[in-house]
Amino acid sequence: MLSRNYQDVAPEPVGEGITIRWVISKPEGAPNFAMRVIEFAPGAVFEEHQHPYEHEIFVLEGEGVAHGPDGEVEMRPGVALYIPPDEPHGYRNTGKGVLRFICVIPHPE
Amino acid sequence: MLSRNYQDVAPEPVGEGITIRWVISKPEGAPNFAMRVIEFAPGAVFEEHQHPYEHEIFVLEGEGVAHGPDGEVEMRPGVALYIPPDEPHGYRNTGKGVLRFICVIPHPE
Repeated sequence: MLSRNYQDVAPEPVGEGITIRWVISKPEGAPNFAMRVIEFAPGAVFEEHQHPYEHEIFVLEGEGVAHGPDGEVEMRPGVALYIPPDEPHGYRNTGKGVLRFICVIPHPE
Repeated sequence: MLSRNYQDVAPEPVGEGITIRWVISKPEGAPNFAMRVIEFAPGAVFEEHQHPYEHEIFVLEGEGVAHGPDGEVEMRPGVALYIPPDEPHGYRNTGKGVLRFICVIPHPE
């Protein structure tokens, strides 16, 4: 069993005001999927994009919106999002504090 | 994109004082893995067990311990656990409130 606090994993920048921590992934021995913690500073935006793998998301803290083909959905603590493979999506922090969420993806083939 | 608050998913009992919510899984279209939210009432114990698939866990609330072949590890908010396939493990709520954590598993073959 591996145990770590996500805060002990170094955050990597992935955009202006956006970081990602790879909390559990291949280096930890995970065979199938990776758990990451993503943080958006207030006002940070990740523009619409798409990729051939799904997201399973759980919001830990903050307020934001995710947008997709059917419009916007609210991101707040306790909200889970499923984004299917190849579906365009983006995120925006609309709150005054950090927007923090878990995002699980399959390992690339 | 599917959006739901985990609290809107019906909890299913999995032991005395223990429930599971299948927040994102096959019925939501997820092709590879399932995100569940598990809750332990104060004092609840899930005895040691094992299975041929891994766990990726993230603690949301409460205090507890997970035990495995190398002893016990603390469960508190922000702690992530990786439990490899076939490794014996169990959990216990050691706090005064609920112990709540996310547990992601691959779909069975």
